[in-house]
Amino acid sequence: MPEPVKVAVLPKTTEPLTAVIKDAGAVITDLSKAQALIWTESSPAGFPSSLPEGIRWVQLKSAGVQQWITAGTVDERRQWTSAVGAYSLDVAEHAVGQLIACLRQFPLFARQTTWTKQENWKRVASLRGRRIAIVGAGSIGRACIPLLTAFGAEVVAVNRSGRDVEGAIRTLTSENLDEALGLADDAIIAGASTEQTRHLIGAGQLAQLGPDGFLVNIARGDLVDTDALVAALQSGGLGGAALDVTEPEPLPDNHPLWVLPNVLITPHVANPLRNMEPHFAAHAGENLRRFAAGEPLEAQIDLKRKY
Amino acid sequence: MPEPVKVAVLPKTTEPLTAVIKDAGAVITDLSKAQALIWTESSPAGFPSSLPEGIRWVQLKSAGVQQWITAGTVDERRQWTSAVGAYSLDVAEHAVGQLIACLRQFPLFARQTTWTKQENWKRVASLRGRRIAIVGAGSIGRACIPLLTAFGAEVVAVNRSGRDVEGAIRTLTSENLDEALGLADDAIIAGASTEQTRHLIGAGQLAQLGPDGFLVNIARGDLVDTDALVAALQSGGLGGAALDVTEPEPLPDNHPLWVLPNVLITPHVANPLRNMEPHFAAHAGENLRRFAAGEPLEAQIDLKRKY
Repeated sequence: MPEPVKVAVLPKTTEPLTAVIKDAGAVITDLSKAQALIWTESSPAGFPSSLPEGIRWVQLKSAGVQQWITAGTVDERRQWTSAVGAYSLDVAEHAVGQLIACLRQFPLFARQTTWTKQENWKRVASLRGRRIAIVGAGSIGRACIPLLTAFGAEVVAVNRSGRDVEGAIRTLTSENLDEALGLADDAIIAGASTEQTRHLIGAGQLAQLGPDGFLVNIARGDLVDTDALVAALQSGGLGGAALDVTEPEPLPDNHPLWVLPNVLITPHVANPLRNMEPHFAAHAGENLRRFAAGEPLEAQIDLKRKY
Repeated sequence: MPEPVKVAVLPKTTEPLTAVIKDAGAVITDLSKAQALIWTESSPAGFPSSLPEGIRWVQLKSAGVQQWITAGTVDERRQWTSAVGAYSLDVAEHAVGQLIACLRQFPLFARQTTWTKQENWKRVASLRGRRIAIVGAGSIGRACIPLLTAFGAEVVAVNRSGRDVEGAIRTLTSENLDEALGLADDAIIAGASTEQTRHLIGAGQLAQLGPDGFLVNIARGDLVDTDALVAALQSGGLGGAALDVTEPEPLPDNHPLWVLPNVLITPHVANPLRNMEPHFAAHAGENLRRFAAGEPLEAQIDLKRKY
């Protein structure tokens, strides 16, 4: 029988995490004796300033790890894994729900206190028959595809390689982003936040979606140029937007986005809090099993790609 | 070559309807010479007070035909068909969109002008893993099922016969409605409006859904007891509701439903206006083809069932 893996869980463990660690045949120890570290907070605040040599793998809790990389926390002396994939289905559900909400004018209707069928019925559109650009076909973007196609929508995928994405009618590389947006009615932004993707969606990209197009951002606020978005919405150059992430974030009070009739802001809640612990525990548990078995870990952080 | 079917189109035809009539090899004539009548308004206002004997079939434009039956317009001297099925996919999309909107607290978030993650993140729930009662498994209810299951939800169906509905984990008869609601987290009301279904959902049924349950009504307002719904929402006995139809309808200004934080009212717009003409034309065209070929028509109105 192999020696059990010794894992440190900091700042502190959770009930579902303790259960999966036990199920994986591993034991929780102090950091100084551990081979692996599972970090159970979404923020790096309080993360150890240096790690013992014995730590061969660190599991982080966030899907987006930009601030960990920028801070220099992630090093090349051991394996680091993010939570990419752990929350994808829940976040994809939010994205598709936000898109339907936009098309069906829920933000507008939610603010009415009178029956506005006559004025607003003509504004309501159906997802069926529309073409949606998924910008960033990682685990969240790919999880959106079967949901969208179940409603009878088509998907154009945009990724770095241009390699065909399953379920998409066409896949374009990020260099051809404008073409992809021109082919699509609406877009869901699901890419990683990196130096290269900052303000990926600006005035030119929003113009490709046009007055009847809707933008959903489920990724990170800095992928969209907020000022350009506000201008497009105010001028009618874009049909509407639903944002779970913003730049700046939190979105300040009195920001024009709060009161535009065709905008739905959700405060970075696409991954429901109540699901987070069990889903992270399942993800970390699978990686713990792989670590013990010497198999490749899921969601390895790539310092060159920076996510 | 058979004689072309002579069809009257009143009050007036539409472009897509004229096209399908031509495609079906039929011709548009006066009512006095016609074998069939296609009525192109959703309301009976202006409908001929008596029809020539020559009219063997009348196609109406609404899915819900209660007011046509009550007015005594629908008779047994000829065939009458409704638009049941013509708009089902679009309406099902609205229903599922409304359910996700409730679960993800879009009505609450749409009314904020400040970032409320800390207070409200814990309220956000995922459709995945929930069990949804579909009350009335007609064409709209059945169209909801593959959408819900694509998100990882389970469906309990309720219909008159109790005959198994495809895609549902269980089907119960309407006599066992309370049991079905007790098995479910949330409910989508998609049944026909008849004398028997008036106030089908009252205080007892809402209590089965409970404080974390959501109600969506996409059918007709009178299936839900509005006063009981308001009471359940105000007391926290029900998690929230999304209504595309209300009783009374239109919902009057100053009605308490307009301002409850967990309620989304859409003003009977689930079937987008822009899709209505083409989808009705496709439905009427298929029935015209069947009429010419002597095949059974789709969506025949049954005066005994009253829909």
